Amino acid sequence: MSRPFQRIAIVGMGLIGGSIGMALYQGKIAEEVVGCDLNVESLDLALSTKAAHRVEKDIVKAVKDAEMVILATPVRTYPSIVKAMKDHLEVGAIVTDVGSTKSWVVKELETLLGDDNPFVGGHPMAGSEKKGMEGADRYLLENAVYVLTPHDRTCRKALEKVKSMVQALGARSLVLSVEEHDKMVAMVSHLPHMVAVALVDTLGEVTKEHPSVTMLAAGGFRDTTRIAAGDPQMWYDIACTNRNLLVEKIDHFQSLLEKLKREILTCGQTIQGTEEPLKVRLQKARDLRLSIPGKAKGLLPGIHEVIVTVPDRPGMIGHMARLLGDQGINIADIEILRVREGDGGTIRIGFYQAHEAEKALQVLSQDGIIVKRC
Amino acid sequence: MSRPFQRIAIVGMGLIGGSIGMALYQGKIAEEVVGCDLNVESLDLALSTKAAHRVEKDIVKAVKDAEMVILATPVRTYPSIVKAMKDHLEVGAIVTDVGSTKSWVVKELETLLGDDNPFVGGHPMAGSEKKGMEGADRYLLENAVYVLTPHDRTCRKALEKVKSMVQALGARSLVLSVEEHDKMVAMVSHLPHMVAVALVDTLGEVTKEHPSVTMLAAGGFRDTTRIAAGDPQMWYDIACTNRNLLVEKIDHFQSLLEKLKREILTCGQTIQGTEEPLKVRLQKARDLRLSIPGKAKGLLPGIHEVIVTVPDRPGMIGHMARLLGDQGINIADIEILRVREGDGGTIRIGFYQAHEAEKALQVLSQDGIIVKRC
Repeated sequence: MSRPFQRIAIVGMGLIGGSIGMALYQGKIAEEVVGCDLNVESLDLALSTKAAHRVEKDIVKAVKDAEMVILATPVRTYPSIVKAMKDHLEVGAIVTDVGSTKSWVVKELETLLGDDNPFVGGHPMAGSEKKGMEGADRYLLENAVYVLTPHDRTCRKALEKVKSMVQALGARSLVLSVEEHDKMVAMVSHLPHMVAVALVDTLGEVTKEHPSVTMLAAGGFRDTTRIAAGDPQMWYDIACTNRNLLVEKIDHFQSLLEKLKREILTCGQTIQGTEEPLKVRLQKARDLRLSIPGKAKGLLPGIHEVIVTVPDRPGMIGHMARLLGDQGINIADIEILRVREGDGGTIRIGFYQAHEAEKALQVLSQDGIIVKRC
Repeated sequence: MSRPFQRIAIVGMGLIGGSIGMALYQGKIAEEVVGCDLNVESLDLALSTKAAHRVEKDIVKAVKDAEMVILATPVRTYPSIVKAMKDHLEVGAIVTDVGSTKSWVVKELETLLGDDNPFVGGHPMAGSEKKGMEGADRYLLENAVYVLTPHDRTCRKALEKVKSMVQALGARSLVLSVEEHDKMVAMVSHLPHMVAVALVDTLGEVTKEHPSVTMLAAGGFRDTTRIAAGDPQMWYDIACTNRNLLVEKIDHFQSLLEKLKREILTCGQTIQGTEEPLKVRLQKARDLRLSIPGKAKGLLPGIHEVIVTVPDRPGMIGHMARLLGDQGINIADIEILRVREGDGGTIRIGFYQAHEAEKALQVLSQDGIIVKRC
């Protein structure tokens, strides 16, 4: 069977570009995936990890005869890249991107590309605190929401082609207007990033006085600030290209934090019989947070889990996995929750089907393993 | 061999109290662990999950003849609990607690307890977004930092007894002054919590206009706000009892976020040749964040990892685990990174020793499995 695309070029073999390359290569959607980057090491790695069939440092060679070009470099580099490749694109070749802001990008690139090459803005909602081609992963975009931002004048055929590429990645297309997209990501992505940066900043000032404070940073602080380890260049570009909506959200956030602070200052002083505002706010935040779908659970089929407690010795996981495998029960997810060498551990095992979890419960407990549903 | 304690009573069989009970029960440090709670279901669960040898709803019965009483209820309930049990404590029985703030607690309880019963403030630096006895876990405090806040007048013998209890939990004692403790936790725990609450609040207001915004909340937002799902009552008590230091930290954080906001507003406008302040701040935040020890890695022995990519079918994990177990290689940690039913997955496997990881690399690749060191 012939493949839907003859040639797709990816410009920028970093975390996202590399992951897309791997998924397209394995998804067999194109006869040839061409990877382009200025960094020769990234290109070598792209070849050896099968993120591209061919690699090119030269953008003109990379985009030659490609039906689709995917821009996966920091957004502020797009204009110079498009200027360099523009005259070498096939007429009708589709250009798309993976950048985190869309208003600025769509306006700039449509102007530069003119009528010969349709542009469809894209933004896969997945990432990692890892940087570069080393962090690329064939499954990074699996089940992720992949936003596309066409408008009235966007060529429908081009949109359909980009959708088919997204489908080949195993991701889910979601069409939004550029304005909707930029507002939403300012909320769910750019604001949390800047908040995490400011939190780490605050810790930095406290460590000057109390160097041991990082020892006390339990899971809560680490989780809250994990994203602050993201690529500074990328986040700089995001801040610059979504400046107004981001600053609006920071203002919004600050006013709510200010309210919360005032409630803390007066807590315990409420008139009898009325609900304390701080309690109400904490409860509401808990409820809303719990309503947000957990790790991939909103997108993956529901996971049914059991928790086992086992001694920590060679072969224990293998032993359990074998018991389950022998019964044809597939482990969808496994996580070692806590373990101390030579003592024991708590392990969470997830299954796609409820009846698999039930069966696992039986099989494991019959073997004398401490196990419960959760 | 006789056990170090005859009887330890835990007041409050929730997440922490229950986890302590399980660890002390299994650690065989006391002849009897007594669990006390007003909630009968929690007591039943405590018995059935071996978090206590005996349970009591009545505090007087619970603390009778106990050598140590561990308070594990929300901190603002301590005074009434201490008043109720005070006249029924053995002279010399040690009282300790697990509360997240210390200045207020130590002052209140020492006044109430007087000279007959030494008090040692404690705070295990571990938690979970799960609530109550259902979330209790024998390994929750394993390898956690457990802060103790004695002062000049604290009885040394009582401190040593509490330290031996902490050791039996598998946690690590860290002695700090109450002031140091309260400042540090305001930074690493209470501030991040209030920031997460304000972020969720902001999202709540945005969802009114854009209900689908939560669909876009990728890992970043979820991680940053996970702690906002914590117990509202507990966090209310924390805010009230560490009010001034917490508000000080919120102000500190707000001023740094304000600086960051101004840098975003002027980004791209820096005079040629000087470093853009926003870039510098993002880079510094990344560097500092990366310097914070990862999940338990600061406390556990170093973990050496390999990454494997395998088809997702029944028995694959068992097959790999068996290959490793047959060679006497112990899996210290395993995590399924990404998986799609019927396709394949990326799995991270951790080992305590570098040579185990090397050997695993050999064994797995000889079996035709795609594997790399990471």
